[in-house]
Amino acid sequence: MTATRVTIKDVAARAGVSKGAVSLAFNHKPGLSEATRDRIFRAARELGWAPNLTARSLAGSRVDVVGLAICRPARLLGLEPFYMEFVSGVESVLTERSCSLLLRLVRNVQEEVGIQESWWRGRQIGGSILVDFRADDPRVAAMERLGMPVVAVGHPSLTGGLPSVWTDDATAVTEAVRYLAALGHRRIARVGGAAALGHTSIRTAAFDEAARVLELAGAWQVATDFSGDAGARATRSLLMAAAADRPTAIVYDNDIMAVAGLSVAAEMGLRVPADVSLLAWDDSQLCRLTHPTLSAMSHDVHGFGADVARTLFGVITGEGPGSHPVPTPVLTPRGSTAPPMV
Amino acid sequence: MTATRVTIKDVAARAGVSKGAVSLAFNHKPGLSEATRDRIFRAARELGWAPNLTARSLAGSRVDVVGLAICRPARLLGLEPFYMEFVSGVESVLTERSCSLLLRLVRNVQEEVGIQESWWRGRQIGGSILVDFRADDPRVAAMERLGMPVVAVGHPSLTGGLPSVWTDDATAVTEAVRYLAALGHRRIARVGGAAALGHTSIRTAAFDEAARVLELAGAWQVATDFSGDAGARATRSLLMAAAADRPTAIVYDNDIMAVAGLSVAAEMGLRVPADVSLLAWDDSQLCRLTHPTLSAMSHDVHGFGADVARTLFGVITGEGPGSHPVPTPVLTPRGSTAPPMV
Repeated sequence: MTATRVTIKDVAARAGVSKGAVSLAFNHKPGLSEATRDRIFRAARELGWAPNLTARSLAGSRVDVVGLAICRPARLLGLEPFYMEFVSGVESVLTERSCSLLLRLVRNVQEEVGIQESWWRGRQIGGSILVDFRADDPRVAAMERLGMPVVAVGHPSLTGGLPSVWTDDATAVTEAVRYLAALGHRRIARVGGAAALGHTSIRTAAFDEAARVLELAGAWQVATDFSGDAGARATRSLLMAAAADRPTAIVYDNDIMAVAGLSVAAEMGLRVPADVSLLAWDDSQLCRLTHPTLSAMSHDVHGFGADVARTLFGVITGEGPGSHPVPTPVLTPRGSTAPPMV
Repeated sequence: MTATRVTIKDVAARAGVSKGAVSLAFNHKPGLSEATRDRIFRAARELGWAPNLTARSLAGSRVDVVGLAICRPARLLGLEPFYMEFVSGVESVLTERSCSLLLRLVRNVQEEVGIQESWWRGRQIGGSILVDFRADDPRVAAMERLGMPVVAVGHPSLTGGLPSVWTDDATAVTEAVRYLAALGHRRIARVGGAAALGHTSIRTAAFDEAARVLELAGAWQVATDFSGDAGARATRSLLMAAAADRPTAIVYDNDIMAVAGLSVAAEMGLRVPADVSLLAWDDSQLCRLTHPTLSAMSHDVHGFGADVARTLFGVITGEGPGSHPVPTPVLTPRGSTAPPMV
């Protein structure tokens, strides 16, 4: 049997309008009377036609919806300023293009592969943003097989041949440790993020290497789940040692954990920065709202999200900048770092 | 002219499988070989069939996608813990049902009406969550006209006849002011949210009424955009007056502004709570990470989002709890509130 594919032309004919008018109605652009719009929507409904079926032919490579799956427990997602700032940056570019974000929390990367495939085959999205790459990430092969437009947020060593946007984490970690060492710190700790993530591994290796090159007397690294509670626990365990044995400076993988660290230092009667220096990462507004203010490796997370969204549109149209790093986080000294009081 | 509507039956026939197998493939359920799935997807593509066209007939009232439009500048969205926690609560319920969230930032409520209509008519969503209601909100009439399943997050005085979930803000504000007055405060200020929002007006009226009933010697209210910077500015201007004329207690409409207020007090050499008591709202993890910890009107924002999502599924299936309030925020005293030192 054969079935006739319903096109925008059929909808236009049935509603007695031009194809352009149908396009206007479904892109909710001005210029049509309420009655005409109702007639168009009714005709489309009667014919079983939906614009996403023909979105690409409707207006060249126009894309209405972009996908983003995040593998993080819902409860933790709400606590992590990074993703909200990242999503707000993505949305700032999507809004300019009348485009929406299809957001999904997944339990693991295998589930994400199934969902991305279903979104793409079901024509629900025009492309996707992939985040939180791990070593040997199965999404690399899956996306290549699907031929789906994506931008991978991650270092090219993790994202295979996928178009990628990344932060140079190794350089930034090295800069952070070198700065603390230049202030005179010889015992430095890092409260890191989730160990399974590729960018955490990159930071861990860079910290080890910097500690070796600088011949630090003490170097500690603790993995967490990025939450404030985990950051507080890690800080407490690092600062419980006798004064001569504990770190005099701690660098954190995000800013909520550094805020927690500041609070733990106060609770333990340690002065910041006289007794211990704290250095945050990402530098959301939180770092300027604490007292003392938090020194940070500043990273424009909103701009990062916007850059990723623009790159995805470039991948879709074939006119984009392609793979590139975003600016490396820069050291922003504030009130929480100083030479150690020996 | 007439056009034949392509159905799942056509896709199944062309692929040589049952309708159930097509359903399995498009809902990415296990049980099909890779070859069969590929054949189904190819048949669907050739026929121009997409599952969202028939999602409802496919599996009863199954819904794949739920909409959420937020009217807030992208830059501010990333700074406001409330929405990320709310969205994470929504996602926690959506994930259980293999459902995604279609997220869009809009400039105004008129734009939102157009987008919701386009999502619904284009069958991109099975229902929507509406937030940030204002007085005489045009979404009430628009959603009733569309007959679209929605849940309005807002007090019934703002949301007309739409199914609604709300917080009893008037009771919570009254409780906050009565607590501060019971501690002995006679000059109390409120740093409020965006004046255009309906729930802000409800809180403003309740604060005025509580100040009148309690015969406070001084009562101030300042509107902001919910950002930490605006909260800092408001706090600075309130605390600049001579000691005898300034508020001895300040209540904030969210917690990021209270964190900012704590920092401004420190910057101005005022002790919290000896010189000024601060009371936060929402009570995200931030309130436990500051020093002193912040007293707050605690509100389970994550649970609020989950409740709203469950209520929307109830509206769609006709089996839900219907309109109801969520638990009223409760006072959680911590280190930032105490009797005033006269």
